[in-house]
This record gives sequence, C-alpha cells and structure tokens, in this order.
Amino acid sequence: MDSSASRASVVAAQVFGVTAVVLMLVWLIHFRGGLNLNSQNKNLIFNVHPFLMFVGFIFIGGQAMMAYKTVRAERKVQKFIHMILHLIAITLGIIGIYAVFKFHNESGISNMYSLHSWLGIITFCLYGLQWLFGFLLFWFPGAAEHRRKNVHPLHRMAGVFIFLMAICTAETGLIERFFFSSLKHQPEARLINFTGLFIILYGFSVCFSLIR
Amino acid sequence: MDSSASRASVVAAQVFGVTAVVLMLVWLIHFRGGLNLNSQNKNLIFNVHPFLMFVGFIFIGGQAMMAYKTVRAERKVQKFIHMILHLIAITLGIIGIYAVFKFHNESGISNMYSLHSWLGIITFCLYGLQWLFGFLLFWFPGAAEHRRKNVHPLHRMAGVFIFLMAICTAETGLIERFFFSSLKHQPEARLINFTGLFIILYGFSVCFSLIR
Repeated sequence: MDSSASRASVVAAQVFGVTAVVLMLVWLIHFRGGLNLNSQNKNLIFNVHPFLMFVGFIFIGGQAMMAYKTVRAERKVQKFIHMILHLIAITLGIIGIYAVFKFHNESGISNMYSLHSWLGIITFCLYGLQWLFGFLLFWFPGAAEHRRKNVHPLHRMAGVFIFLMAICTAETGLIERFFFSSLKHQPEARLINFTGLFIILYGFSVCFSLIR
Repeated sequence: MDSSASRASVVAAQVFGVTAVVLMLVWLIHFRGGLNLNSQNKNLIFNVHPFLMFVGFIFIGGQAMMAYKTVRAERKVQKFIHMILHLIAITLGIIGIYAVFKFHNESGISNMYSLHSWLGIITFCLYGLQWLFGFLLFWFPGAAEHRRKNVHPLHRMAGVFIFLMAICTAETGLIERFFFSSLKHQPEARLINFTGLFIILYGFSVCFSLIR
C-alpha cells in the first residue's frame, strides 16, 4: 500500500478511535451514572470495566501498533514508545479485568461463563505472551539480527490477529451490557450500537494503516 | 509466508470450520429441537438463522476465499469456483436473514435494534457490493489487465475485512442467543461458547492461509 493510503488510515483511525472514546464516556457518565472502582453502587464499579478495556487496553494498544507511523523520531525511540504503550495498555487492561471480577464478586454474580469472558481471557493471555516475546526478541536481551528479521512478520501478523480478537471481544461485551440493561430502541441503545460501530472502524483502520 | 505454512493454515481452517459446523448442528438439533422454516414452533424458524448464517454464509464464504489454494485446476476454473461459492454463500445468507425476520415478525419481536443486527446488515451489504465489483472487474465484462492488477490487492484486503466482520457478527449473535436462552453454566452454554471459539479459529485460519 502506498504511504498516502497508510497516512489516511492513521488519520481515520484517530477520528474513529476518539469518537468511540467520547461515545463511551457519554454512555458511562450520562446514561450509567459514572465510574468508580470503590462504590456502594456496584454498577459504577462495573463501568470501570468497559472504560479501561476499550480506552485503556484497545485504544492505547492501537496507538502502540501505529507508533511507527505516528511518532516522528528515530527507530529506537519509536520502538521504545511502541513497547511502553503496549505495557500501559496491558496494565490498564489488568485493572479493567479486576474491575469486572470485583463487580461480580460484590454483586454475587458468577464469573467466566459467557463467550465474551472466554474470548477476553484468551485474547488477554495471547496479548501478554506477544508482549513478552516481543520484549525478549526485539528489546532485551534481543535476538540475533537474522532471527529478528525472520520473526518480525510473525510478530506483526500475530499482533494484528490478537488486536482483532480484542475488537471482537469488545463487540460481544457491548451486546452483553445491552441485554443486561434490557435496552431496545432507546437513545442509549443507539449510543451503544454506534460505539460498537466506531470501535470496529477503529480496529480496521489501525490494521489497515499497518499494511505496507 | 512460505507455502507449507499456507497449506497448514488451509488444513487448520477445514478442521476448525467442520468442528464449528458439527458443534452448531448438535446445538440446534439436540438442544434446540431442530430447524424448520415453516413451523408452528417459532424457535425452529429462528434456528434456521444461525445455521444458514454460519454454515451457509461464513463457512462457504471461507471456502470461496480459499478456492485458489484448495482447488487443483487451472486459474480460470479456480476463479469460477471462487465466484460461484461466494454467490451460494450470499444466497444462503439471504435466506438466513429472511428466517430471522420471519421469526421476529411471527413472534411480535421488533427488528434491527441490536448491535448484532446492525453489524450483520452492514457486513452483508458490503459483502454483496464486494461480490458485484469482483464480478464486474474480474469476470464479466472484466477490466483491462493493468486495472485488474491495481485493484486486486484492494479486493483481497476488503474481502478479508468483510469476512472478519462476518465472524465478529457471528460471535455477537451467539452471545445474544446465549442470553435470550438464559444460559449460564449448563452444557449448552459451554457448547455455544466452544462453537464461538471454533468459528473465530476458522476465521483467522482462513485469513492466515491467504497471506503470501
């Protein structure tokens, strides 16, 4: 793909991503009473989960993937930012997963029975492994040059698939919340659906921007 | 990607795909009473929907995408099979969509309010457009050679993204049915979740097999 199409994809990704973040914040704050990890209102604990999984994990993870395109600096600096952003994404993701377990446990709801939770845990484990292998191979101690070159396409491809799994998990999560909240044709229902559409547009445009 | 990895992906796709088909049939026939487009039992009408959307649309659509790898014949024959399989997928998809509208209308349930339905309709329209453009550019009347060559990478990429959207839509659909059936830890719940996992594995291995 020529570099102008790649640049256009980066811009599109930022527009779609920021739109999804704003829509999600309107949903959680305006319609769902806000976010609080320590609250008597258990729903506010839950709200931390979609916020951190999308804004913390997926949005920042996408930024990490695009760092080689968006950060104007030498390769070593880009790589450092790529690695650090992924680490931030993982850290916020862990807090996001903790939030939903806390919500379930304090509300007497059982854990890990839905397809969303299965997809989520698998995605998160793969993401963590991908980060670890990336760190060991490309940062410290780092593999030999020819080995890096061989593994690099696999690192990119695995990254794209894991990211798309995260997007898919987000969509299933939105559907779950939609039905738990007994929504149908309300403004909140449409807001959630549009959030889902912009999340998928963000996911695809991030992947699209990486194609060389 | 070397051709042995591509071949392994094709084999993996067939194993994952057939497993997902079998799991879905066990689910619909053993747990959900079977499939029938004309029945007094409205649930049997609904059951036609997941069956045709996965087995008809996604599974056969994936086979169409892999036709250049799986069909040992000259290029023209492969292309014809690629086109016809996609047309069969679209036709079965239309019947599958008709089934869920019929189920909704006969059961007094409103249409098109969930994220699953929005993703599904968007995916289906994009899939239809992709087929139409493919037909006009690569089959009849067909574009000039240099134009085909320019458009081909876009055709492949769009195809992969639309297919991944279909996979994502399938996952959201399974989640919907899971919650409409008020499942949690039953054997049926696990069966649906494993079906979802094998569908996503099928989707990724189909895409993986196409990487050159």
